Amino acid sequence: MGASEALEAWSALLGAGRVAVDAASLAPYSASTAARSTRPLAVLRPLTTDEVVAVVRIAARHGTALYPISVGHNWGYGDACAVRDGNVIVDLSGMRRILEMDRDLAYVVVEPGVTQAQLSDYLLREDLPMWMDCTGGGPDTSLVGNILERGFGHSPYGNRFQNVAGMRIVLGNGEVLNTGFGHFPTAVNQRIFPYGVGPYLDGLFTQANLGIVTSLGLWLMPKTQAINHFLCSVEEHGDIAAVVDALRPLRMGGILRSILHIGNDLRVISGGMTFPHQLAPGASRLPDEVRQQLRKSAGIGSWTVSGALYGSTAQLAFARKAVRMALAPTRARVQFLDERKLALGEMAVRMLGKGALAHKLRARVALGRSLFDMNRGIPNGRFLAGAYWRRRGGLPKGFPQGANPALDNCGLLWVSPVLPMRGADMLVASSLADRIFRAHQFDLFATFSMINERALGGVLTVAFDKEDAAETARARACHDQLFEEMMAAGYIPYRVGQQSMDKLDNGDDSFWRTVARVKDALDPQHIIAPGRYGPG
Amino acid sequence: MGASEALEAWSALLGAGRVAVDAASLAPYSASTAARSTRPLAVLRPLTTDEVVAVVRIAARHGTALYPISVGHNWGYGDACAVRDGNVIVDLSGMRRILEMDRDLAYVVVEPGVTQAQLSDYLLREDLPMWMDCTGGGPDTSLVGNILERGFGHSPYGNRFQNVAGMRIVLGNGEVLNTGFGHFPTAVNQRIFPYGVGPYLDGLFTQANLGIVTSLGLWLMPKTQAINHFLCSVEEHGDIAAVVDALRPLRMGGILRSILHIGNDLRVISGGMTFPHQLAPGASRLPDEVRQQLRKSAGIGSWTVSGALYGSTAQLAFARKAVRMALAPTRARVQFLDERKLALGEMAVRMLGKGALAHKLRARVALGRSLFDMNRGIPNGRFLAGAYWRRRGGLPKGFPQGANPALDNCGLLWVSPVLPMRGADMLVASSLADRIFRAHQFDLFATFSMINERALGGVLTVAFDKEDAAETARARACHDQLFEEMMAAGYIPYRVGQQSMDKLDNGDDSFWRTVARVKDALDPQHIIAPGRYGPG
Repeated sequence: MGASEALEAWSALLGAGRVAVDAASLAPYSASTAARSTRPLAVLRPLTTDEVVAVVRIAARHGTALYPISVGHNWGYGDACAVRDGNVIVDLSGMRRILEMDRDLAYVVVEPGVTQAQLSDYLLREDLPMWMDCTGGGPDTSLVGNILERGFGHSPYGNRFQNVAGMRIVLGNGEVLNTGFGHFPTAVNQRIFPYGVGPYLDGLFTQANLGIVTSLGLWLMPKTQAINHFLCSVEEHGDIAAVVDALRPLRMGGILRSILHIGNDLRVISGGMTFPHQLAPGASRLPDEVRQQLRKSAGIGSWTVSGALYGSTAQLAFARKAVRMALAPTRARVQFLDERKLALGEMAVRMLGKGALAHKLRARVALGRSLFDMNRGIPNGRFLAGAYWRRRGGLPKGFPQGANPALDNCGLLWVSPVLPMRGADMLVASSLADRIFRAHQFDLFATFSMINERALGGVLTVAFDKEDAAETARARACHDQLFEEMMAAGYIPYRVGQQSMDKLDNGDDSFWRTVARVKDALDPQHIIAPGRYGPG
Repeated sequence: MGASEALEAWSALLGAGRVAVDAASLAPYSASTAARSTRPLAVLRPLTTDEVVAVVRIAARHGTALYPISVGHNWGYGDACAVRDGNVIVDLSGMRRILEMDRDLAYVVVEPGVTQAQLSDYLLREDLPMWMDCTGGGPDTSLVGNILERGFGHSPYGNRFQNVAGMRIVLGNGEVLNTGFGHFPTAVNQRIFPYGVGPYLDGLFTQANLGIVTSLGLWLMPKTQAINHFLCSVEEHGDIAAVVDALRPLRMGGILRSILHIGNDLRVISGGMTFPHQLAPGASRLPDEVRQQLRKSAGIGSWTVSGALYGSTAQLAFARKAVRMALAPTRARVQFLDERKLALGEMAVRMLGKGALAHKLRARVALGRSLFDMNRGIPNGRFLAGAYWRRRGGLPKGFPQGANPALDNCGLLWVSPVLPMRGADMLVASSLADRIFRAHQFDLFATFSMINERALGGVLTVAFDKEDAAETARARACHDQLFEEMMAAGYIPYRVGQQSMDKLDNGDDSFWRTVARVKDALDPQHIIAPGRYGPG
């Protein structure tokens, strides 16, 4: 068998301690929040690019498929699992060096194992004048992993792939490719200009299976004098359309430079609780009146717009005014949060001590603090709470400390359609989703984020009880119908879970044929991540 | 012969009128501002993507190399010429439709023949609320052609490739590839989110020879309430370093959102005149004292920083203050220009009538008007004047009307190094260039532009008398030494002329090997643009 010979060679290379085949070691790599999972053959833990090269060469010699993961926290999109059974997981979480840092030009070079928390801590500890862009995926997620999936964050640097300069990649043939200017041995400019000279290749290695990225240059946002967070509440569902259209010119005009998130009521509600079985016994979806009641007691509307303003205090005053003026003709209520208000709130909480009012205020202040921290690159696990909505036993003890939705047995599927940034499109997409979730008896968690100046990136979550086989089957059906109807409506997703990768190819599409030809050219034996964003 | 059969087939396809082989028709495709040019076999003029597909299929059948150009005005980097002899030019200048326009989401979809002037006129005529980004290449240059070379402009949308969403490409096998979401037949989101889902391929088709782009989506900048242009003069060469370092935080912090251009004295001087032979008889380079004198009479310093501020009047007031404060500790003199000042200047010119003072003021006001127009996407040919510096007979009659440096027999070579945005790097690169230009007896035209938040894009021009064989040889030697020393110093260029394409590959570089493999996969017969940004 090729595999057993390969395993011997890998053990000789990495030592037995960094090659595992036992069930206990492999279990985390077949635990998934999705309604499917795959079984790996083994897991390898290289620590350097050279080791990755040697790992790939051995795989190529023996024809064994590899599946690289950064730290494997790709929640809801496949987690730490390979797309197909029988792959050897290449777990890069041990490659966690910050290889370079430039204070003036505000960038770092990071390996795949560097987590949000690690970079954030580093920047704080060294008191560097820059902020990391942060996602809601939690402190222990990989920066590189998320960027290669073209994830988005919360700050003006939230279009994360746009802030990458220079990748190092191990190809399927074992060659090391440095992109941009990085392949010129003398280059001093590889981290400040992504394109290099000649074809710009980086995009090939995002949402792809064409190589194993072992480091990349990441631009960071220079700190600004101040931040304001703003929350904007929209009572009636239909009124959000006018709000989107009112905010679009500010986003396009550069006044709102950060990623804005527009979440429905359940997004906010699910931050503090899981499904209230006592209020809806036997149900998998909140009855409308219960939802209304929860919405009311949370003091929120149908939709909450959340975003941040960055700049000097003078710039912020101007931006606040612009936001207020833009929203004046709409039915949105706007609230701005700054460091001073937050500190006052925290003082009030301390003074109030215990009691219902203090409890409510404490929750609001804690949320404000988390949002504020996110804006300046301090990650927080609380935004993962939605994944636990239908979990038996609710939130684990000590949550969000050590939260791991895959190992915690959460059921979670996502559909992520991209919409033109127009209120009308948002209404179409959300009523489409609403109808389908209602039919399959699930609560709809919906966020539409202004991920660039012209697009809304939707994240629609099916949260389900994975221990209930019937509910799991319904969740899959709900996901699949949603996916298909969004595709039919033309709202193609920006990213997909592994269950949907083969649905992206209708079998007669020159795009996927082109991708397949490039795959054959760069990885002729199909060693790397078979099935990942690649045609059948 | 394959070629003659191919020509017959193309004639049958396009009609004799759109296939040319006669010397007069081919002459413009071997005229180059560079110190070399190539001879094409024929020129074809398809008008639609379908015709391009048919052209490519015929080429593949007969093994004939094609060389696509948009309108062929790639001044100084190869103009309308193929990299190698004997190619069939595919001239796309007849594909000049604006295929789509969206007013709310501010984009157009354009074909390769659409020129800066054409799109600019269209936006003005339809009174659309958006501005095009504009280069100094002149009104008759192609938008698509420049973008595929990753050129940069003047506005906040000056990183042009970053504002492309969705390309249509004819591959070497005759397949049509739609990138981004464009290959999903239902997609309504292909123009608002460039990446699509799966590998992001667009970068492959920039600075490359992997396909023929027949249209692309181009984002336009929403108009702002006002624009201020600013000019900042730095008397002594060494003082520019502090200015770069002072402006960097404003560029990185989003206060200066447009591309800033930092030009040396000769860049400004050459805008209004050609080499003054009467002041320097027999010389190919201005004597230092003549240069000083010209600088003095133009009222400029060693360096001029030129850029624009965009926003509401309140934002502009804030930005002006920020620029003034940042520059206060430096030796720069700053001047802001707005619509009102410009109108006053134009009125004064009319009132003054004739005379020396009126003449001088008229020149300044005209320059101001041109800069202002550029900022809002109205192209102007005057910035091409530098190409004519050493031309016998000076500027052609009626310049810039119909200016065509290639047909006008200008001698022009460019080296375009990318530098970290640091004053120290700019001093190193410019003294390196200065030494080499002095040794080869050429005037150094230098611009360093803040092309993104972290990089300076240098454009260093060797302007020479192409009718003087010895000067031409020296120009080539000057260019080559400059190119090599910049590479050795690590300032790799962002773009190269055809004379340098083979110097980008040292013969043992996994980057170029990867590009070659992709080339073999997508264009196995090497039909498209052999030698263009591809390894030997």
